[in-house]
Amino acid sequence: MKILGLAGSLMLFGAAAVSLRADAGMWLFSEPPREQLKARYGFDATDAWLDHLMKSSVRFNSGGSGSFVSADGLVITNHHVGADDLQKLSSAEHNYLRDGFSAATPEAELKCVDLELNVLQSIEDVTGQVNAAVDADLSADKAAEARRAAIAAIEKGSLEKTGLRSDVVTLHQGGAYHLYRYKRYTDVRLVFAPEQQIAFFGGDADNFEYPRYNLDVCLFRAYENGKPAHIENFLRWSAQGAADGELTFVSGHPGHTDRQLTLAELKFLRDVQFPYTLARLKRLEVLLGNWSARDGENARRARDDYFYIQNSRKAYDGEMAALQAPALFAAKATGEHALGNAAEVAGSLARVAASVEQQKELMVRQRLLDGRRHEVLFAPDAFWCDSFALARTLLRTPVERAKPDGERLEEYSDAARESFELALFTEKPIHSDLETLKLADSLGLLAEQFGHDDPFVQQVLAGKSPRQRAYELISGTKVRDVAFRRELYAGGAAAVAAAKDPLIELARLVDPAAREVRKRWEEIGEVKQQAHAVLERARFAQRGTGAAPDATFTLRLSYGVVKGYTESGKAIAPFTDYAGLYARSAAHEGREPFDLPARWVEKRSALDLAVPFNLVSTHDIIGGNSGSPLVNRAGEFVGIIFDGNLQGLILAFAYDEVEARAISVDSRGILEALRKVYGVEALVEELVNGRRPAAPRAPRVDG
Amino acid sequence: MKILGLAGSLMLFGAAAVSLRADAGMWLFSEPPREQLKARYGFDATDAWLDHLMKSSVRFNSGGSGSFVSADGLVITNHHVGADDLQKLSSAEHNYLRDGFSAATPEAELKCVDLELNVLQSIEDVTGQVNAAVDADLSADKAAEARRAAIAAIEKGSLEKTGLRSDVVTLHQGGAYHLYRYKRYTDVRLVFAPEQQIAFFGGDADNFEYPRYNLDVCLFRAYENGKPAHIENFLRWSAQGAADGELTFVSGHPGHTDRQLTLAELKFLRDVQFPYTLARLKRLEVLLGNWSARDGENARRARDDYFYIQNSRKAYDGEMAALQAPALFAAKATGEHALGNAAEVAGSLARVAASVEQQKELMVRQRLLDGRRHEVLFAPDAFWCDSFALARTLLRTPVERAKPDGERLEEYSDAARESFELALFTEKPIHSDLETLKLADSLGLLAEQFGHDDPFVQQVLAGKSPRQRAYELISGTKVRDVAFRRELYAGGAAAVAAAKDPLIELARLVDPAAREVRKRWEEIGEVKQQAHAVLERARFAQRGTGAAPDATFTLRLSYGVVKGYTESGKAIAPFTDYAGLYARSAAHEGREPFDLPARWVEKRSALDLAVPFNLVSTHDIIGGNSGSPLVNRAGEFVGIIFDGNLQGLILAFAYDEVEARAISVDSRGILEALRKVYGVEALVEELVNGRRPAAPRAPRVDG
Repeated sequence: MKILGLAGSLMLFGAAAVSLRADAGMWLFSEPPREQLKARYGFDATDAWLDHLMKSSVRFNSGGSGSFVSADGLVITNHHVGADDLQKLSSAEHNYLRDGFSAATPEAELKCVDLELNVLQSIEDVTGQVNAAVDADLSADKAAEARRAAIAAIEKGSLEKTGLRSDVVTLHQGGAYHLYRYKRYTDVRLVFAPEQQIAFFGGDADNFEYPRYNLDVCLFRAYENGKPAHIENFLRWSAQGAADGELTFVSGHPGHTDRQLTLAELKFLRDVQFPYTLARLKRLEVLLGNWSARDGENARRARDDYFYIQNSRKAYDGEMAALQAPALFAAKATGEHALGNAAEVAGSLARVAASVEQQKELMVRQRLLDGRRHEVLFAPDAFWCDSFALARTLLRTPVERAKPDGERLEEYSDAARESFELALFTEKPIHSDLETLKLADSLGLLAEQFGHDDPFVQQVLAGKSPRQRAYELISGTKVRDVAFRRELYAGGAAAVAAAKDPLIELARLVDPAAREVRKRWEEIGEVKQQAHAVLERARFAQRGTGAAPDATFTLRLSYGVVKGYTESGKAIAPFTDYAGLYARSAAHEGREPFDLPARWVEKRSALDLAVPFNLVSTHDIIGGNSGSPLVNRAGEFVGIIFDGNLQGLILAFAYDEVEARAISVDSRGILEALRKVYGVEALVEELVNGRRPAAPRAPRVDG
Repeated sequence: MKILGLAGSLMLFGAAAVSLRADAGMWLFSEPPREQLKARYGFDATDAWLDHLMKSSVRFNSGGSGSFVSADGLVITNHHVGADDLQKLSSAEHNYLRDGFSAATPEAELKCVDLELNVLQSIEDVTGQVNAAVDADLSADKAAEARRAAIAAIEKGSLEKTGLRSDVVTLHQGGAYHLYRYKRYTDVRLVFAPEQQIAFFGGDADNFEYPRYNLDVCLFRAYENGKPAHIENFLRWSAQGAADGELTFVSGHPGHTDRQLTLAELKFLRDVQFPYTLARLKRLEVLLGNWSARDGENARRARDDYFYIQNSRKAYDGEMAALQAPALFAAKATGEHALGNAAEVAGSLARVAASVEQQKELMVRQRLLDGRRHEVLFAPDAFWCDSFALARTLLRTPVERAKPDGERLEEYSDAARESFELALFTEKPIHSDLETLKLADSLGLLAEQFGHDDPFVQQVLAGKSPRQRAYELISGTKVRDVAFRRELYAGGAAAVAAAKDPLIELARLVDPAAREVRKRWEEIGEVKQQAHAVLERARFAQRGTGAAPDATFTLRLSYGVVKGYTESGKAIAPFTDYAGLYARSAAHEGREPFDLPARWVEKRSALDLAVPFNLVSTHDIIGGNSGSPLVNRAGEFVGIIFDGNLQGLILAFAYDEVEARAISVDSRGILEALRKVYGVEALVEELVNGRRPAAPRAPRVDG
């Protein structure tokens, strides 16, 4: 349930009570649910308690969450969050993603290729400032421009003033704008990862299921000035873990929810967006699965992509099932009806519905040419490979940077420059065979969607088949060479043009159409944001209190209790243990994906099989929460979120506490494995004491 | 490359010479390529030689080919052709599909559940009779009805006269109609099958690839009156096999090719039909793959479906790549241009193009509600599960049988009755969990394609989600019970209505729309057939001689030579051997799908590793040819076709001999395995001598 840039993450639903009010909620740290906590649990969420937890929480910009667990910069997250970095550090010789890694000494910690960690320092409401820049009589395109310019100015001003990464976040689908300031860490080193087979035991088959048995953890260390960062706010490790029924908290970065969407928008997801996305994911899953099966090295190269695709597909399938259940739509319709029919509300609902109709027309084109995300390493669906993403970025950079800050495409803003350059100059290995495979399939998708005889498609394919064209482009481009990218970045538009790089020239060919669709898409978004601001005011007036906004991959607090559930009449206990792990493997005769790493077979007798391994709780989470710490009232680390159950995928659209559950690795289970299976005593000591041991770390017991 | 009801089976294509003339061709036994054989190879294809080969060839109605290899009814085919029967004979206790089977004694041979074998006895040209029934001034719907009635009358008359299964086959896309008469065998027993892991070694990864190492064989025995059938025409087994460069023949049942389509029709495949079909196959592949991975018994239940889906997807992907290569379309355009622009030709091309436009509008609806095939056990895409297929058949039978023979939907004709009842009363196990999974996904597809708010969809879903509705329907229906089916079949329309079976009632709800789209689809087909008849006459006039028509799952002869090829500059030798099998498994460290059955690990030292195992040849084949014998000039069995390479998938659209290759198991490799690995001496003796040994068959050496 890593976020991976996807819409959040729903199943069914026999008994599930569909609630459109976020009873639990993914709360802003600036608007915590103090009253509810006090009333339901007698707990005081003090400013100091909240500030400490906020500053102990870490965002992985690659798409997940984590937390500091020692004064010496140690960060814990999920293995599947670290997978992106493990993949980038791996080679044909060292497959750290599959085989794991353990730094025997501090010097052996491996510097990540392009990982950026963010730690939230403050939150400021800038709604007034942003809206003041947008005159009510501006057309949608002018309004979108004005809003973007205002946001860029706020971000840049904040960066200059504080030196902190400064992001303006759109909340309540446009009802509010908050400025988030982060401390950034870009020297991050890998400390420890288990084998993927224990981190992701049961594979795609068990993903989003429970009971589970996954050691889905990975440890990094943040460095500053070449030394482990000194961290004031970190979480103390709990050797006791959490008890059944205990109040606990999750502090992390849920990626995306759609609870505040209107009925028309939900239908758009169900009828248009999800079917498109699922078809594409399944197409890619088959493509990468078959290619991986042909050869072990293929499998290694495609591993991170393949996991991403499978994980996303399972989440979307679950969410689609939720969208197909009539109860959700009935509840949503009731909610909208309850808002009354004041002209302002009715007009806003109608404007959203009209915008959705425009989106229906435009969506495939927007996905193919523009894409869901605007990042250095993210390419649109028609050209889905890192090389194209880099080529487009190199093409656009001099064009955008020549404009005033507020008029640029947002990812080229001055405030985003540091993170942008980190991503652009990544040393990540990019494999031409995998790139060719992905680009060929993407070009084929483009031809199918627009029609092979479409003049634009014919220009893109240049008289070749998609495979031939992809081969020609990938083998001809130099964008995979970091030195080449640095040269073009420094040389500006003239250097880019002089290079005559075939992939950059393709990006140039596509650019007018890509920019046009992006502009139209953003205009539609502006109209919707304005309408949602009205709807949010109406909802606020109705309930008379704040509610948690939809998730936006920013820090949120959710509360809940450790609790089992009932599935198809069967009681599911909240905790699993190591005995269960071995039993499940044996039930499948140790066959994939239920095989155990050799070390786990050998060390079985050393383990206390009764130690709790995984657990479920009622927390309101979604993709992006992966790696979030589970903490107790004392703010201690009692576990780490790594997944939700299929029933929990409904959380994208509505909160449910009957069957929806968050799944964590238990803090006790982690320590047991680190001690008994991996023998990494120094690391255990650091976790237990909250600082690195003074003496050199002892070598691992085994290989 | 079993046919499995799919369009035939293409890749690309650097060097492949695309030829739209079927130089090699899948020849009718009634119009064999005598001159070419004489001229190129000095070989006389005499009537006796052809008749013997024809009557030794066997069609598996489940979708493949085979041949008699002893006077006592022994039939050899591919394991993946027999897989359908192995699956139906298997249970949670005996997984014959995975683990193989060997009848230690004749009595132990297992009777197949519903397998029908057909052996072609004669071919008669009835083009004049069929066309005489269709007045030139009839509207398309009346013409289609008249043609169907004429065909039904010919078939029924032939059945009554000869007692033989009588099928009128449409050739040259409507240019000719031939009556095929078959001897039927419906008591067919399983004699021997190896483990699926050696039959399909390398799995989906190696499917359509070469070099290969597959023992893709399966042996059945045809019975008559409870005793092994006495067979006059069977193939003698060659202990020598074929040599590199040797002329050989393939006699089998290629399913479907599209070489005679017009440019407009090919574009329809590329732009509409293939994208739809591929998206659906990939969706099902992911669905079944994930479900299978959850549990071993799930995997067993879904195994045959899953193989079918993966195999089809790989074939379609390869064919799609061929369709995306500009060379094919350029050659097709040149061919049409060469036909000249006489009014009749131009008009026919225009009529085909106009029909294609109508098909574009109708295709998704036709696939969802009507389906690609009209068989007892084949359901349309929106209701894809055996239970629905049975429910629809039970609903329609009394309605159709009440009409005159010539006015019925063709599958309800009197001539087809015996095969129809065999299929309807199949004892095949139908698992409600798998059925629910498939139906839920299918209903979801329907909702996505028509829109969830469509009134028809709402009627079908009855206020439930697709999963809930599927569960309700599958758990509520009794159609999986053979006694129930017999009762309704005997009871007629009144019994069907009285049963109030929920799935039959769903079929009733859907039936008006399904019949309507089928009628419109058939009308379009009639217009195209008439136009193609004109085009075929023009082509015939131009070349002055017969050419092989597109494949129609009827018996065809192709000739070619054993020959390696060059791929990406690398020479690929024609033969592989057992040493190569073990080397490939070792290169993948014995991991799935390159693991070997335990028996093959144990018996390695007993095998002569230099014995040829698989081989490639230039024969013109396609899906449906699986299991076809490869015979030498003397008519001896030298191998068995089981696949084509990816480059060979272009054969669906055009012949190529540069890289396209058929792949066979070598007759020598088969004998070596039967002797050394399986120790089935009696079976070896029967193959070598062409009759069962008199003495009781010796038991197998091992389990």
